[in-house]
Amino acid sequence: MTEREKIIEILLSEEYFYIISHMLPDGDSVGSLLAMGEGLRRIGKKVRLFTPGQIPGKYHFLQGSEAVVQDVLITDPEITTIVLDSSDPDRLGVFKDAVMKSKIIINIDHHVTNQRFGTLDLVDASAAATGEIIYGILKEMNVEFNKSIAEALYVAISTDTGSFKYENTTSNTHLVVASLLDMGLNPGTISQKIFDERPLSFYILLKEALATLELYERRSMAVMTLSNDIRERSGASSDDLDGIINYTRNIEGVELGVLFYVESDSEVKVGFRSKVLDVSELADRLNGGGHVRAAGCRLQGDFQSVKEKVMAEACKMLKNTKA
Amino acid sequence: MTEREKIIEILLSEEYFYIISHMLPDGDSVGSLLAMGEGLRRIGKKVRLFTPGQIPGKYHFLQGSEAVVQDVLITDPEITTIVLDSSDPDRLGVFKDAVMKSKIIINIDHHVTNQRFGTLDLVDASAAATGEIIYGILKEMNVEFNKSIAEALYVAISTDTGSFKYENTTSNTHLVVASLLDMGLNPGTISQKIFDERPLSFYILLKEALATLELYERRSMAVMTLSNDIRERSGASSDDLDGIINYTRNIEGVELGVLFYVESDSEVKVGFRSKVLDVSELADRLNGGGHVRAAGCRLQGDFQSVKEKVMAEACKMLKNTKA
Repeated sequence: MTEREKIIEILLSEEYFYIISHMLPDGDSVGSLLAMGEGLRRIGKKVRLFTPGQIPGKYHFLQGSEAVVQDVLITDPEITTIVLDSSDPDRLGVFKDAVMKSKIIINIDHHVTNQRFGTLDLVDASAAATGEIIYGILKEMNVEFNKSIAEALYVAISTDTGSFKYENTTSNTHLVVASLLDMGLNPGTISQKIFDERPLSFYILLKEALATLELYERRSMAVMTLSNDIRERSGASSDDLDGIINYTRNIEGVELGVLFYVESDSEVKVGFRSKVLDVSELADRLNGGGHVRAAGCRLQGDFQSVKEKVMAEACKMLKNTKA
Repeated sequence: MTEREKIIEILLSEEYFYIISHMLPDGDSVGSLLAMGEGLRRIGKKVRLFTPGQIPGKYHFLQGSEAVVQDVLITDPEITTIVLDSSDPDRLGVFKDAVMKSKIIINIDHHVTNQRFGTLDLVDASAAATGEIIYGILKEMNVEFNKSIAEALYVAISTDTGSFKYENTTSNTHLVVASLLDMGLNPGTISQKIFDERPLSFYILLKEALATLELYERRSMAVMTLSNDIRERSGASSDDLDGIINYTRNIEGVELGVLFYVESDSEVKVGFRSKVLDVSELADRLNGGGHVRAAGCRLQGDFQSVKEKVMAEACKMLKNTKA
């Protein structure tokens, strides 16, 4: 019996479940949580859903999102706990200890770095989203889908693939979504909500950022600069800030995008984005970390000295790549 | 025999074809053109491809795009001409007269407004893109797909659906794309090229536009203003301009986005975007036209008087909607 088969057996035989996903909830964690919850409910199970963190407003239209609990801890270790989309227990924040005391932990995830902390682990790194794995499990359990499940899984999969633009998108991803759309979803309305809309403060911050745009190394490096002061003045949240940095990379001909975010007189956060370069290496050399195409670091010092240090490393990297 | 069957019969029986798509080529017209051309070539046909207009640089990575002819006219009326993605013959620009002299015109399109000007018309408004129709035809003709065909059709379908975000995206759209990805495409690389990259001039223009942002009617209407002068100074093309207006609509809470583009002292172009309102009505009242969520008009007069007139109509519309 595979781990997957064992998981399905438990899901079918037990009556009560806790389901939880990671802190700083995103589309995949929220969508997977709601779909798994509703799916189990539809075959007569009793479930309680948890997240260690507020669900962002743009996902509030998903049915059941209002009933997800952030502030009541998991209490009964006898109840099987399903952990979704969380590569390690630290991602569960204040819920970590309670979850890890559960007699049975079912760990379902698509991150290749998953630490397999569950009693049973289903980790499929070929899935574009945890929602894609949940789809397969619910189908195998013969759960009858409704619009709520379909919408939740659509949000899970479309957000983790950047609306099917990222390279994690596979043929199976599209097959799953084809079947979800058959439940009568409107991809136009949902996508407008989860992708295109941004608060006014975001655009004010973007204007400030674009005003600082500089290009280096024959226009292959784009640099923008923001500060905590400017962010606060614009009314923007740190969530708004996240969207700004991609504007550096999206300029034609730019290989490396850099955003300096001046936290204070003595600390600067630096974000890196690239099209093909490995910026995790660059971040690594500056005591930071991250992914191949999105990484960053946090450096002590005033803005000018930090900028000089980072620019020197960045230029070296670009020159080595061209050589 | 349906029109579709007759078309397939001709495609299988004839030896020579001209294929042409519309002026101001976009992803669907270019992708459909190249896929149809390569598909017919693979079953031994001889084809020549035409467009009345330069293919934008972001599509030059598509194989065969360099061999599409813009400046040599169609000459032989005996050769069957396939017209793609063009709702009426005017969309064929300088090629119009030559095409309309062809003995057999095969007209394949997904625009509901198609004027059925062909000898044989295959108009399927339920298809998200003309590329989706071409996929079905080539499959039915048992054309063996290669990576070039798959990439061309992927570009056709993904651009006309805004990467599967628009409401024209259906279950079938995703099924088709699932099968295209099986040919070994990398959706990440292609999408970066066709969606995310913009020239530097675009971002300079965006900065200028954001600096003019105004909100009206309790933040339900966003207005930006640009001028021909500013566009020229930023080095931006009119193609760049097209991307700017969507920024008005994408602000949270905004129902109606308006972009004033001051062409000269006596002429102003006005663009409208909405989330749910019918802006084609609004444009209509100002002697313009367009689609439900994207429309526009061109008004004579100086900027101030045009703005007053447009704002009065726009506010009236917003008030009526709320009532």
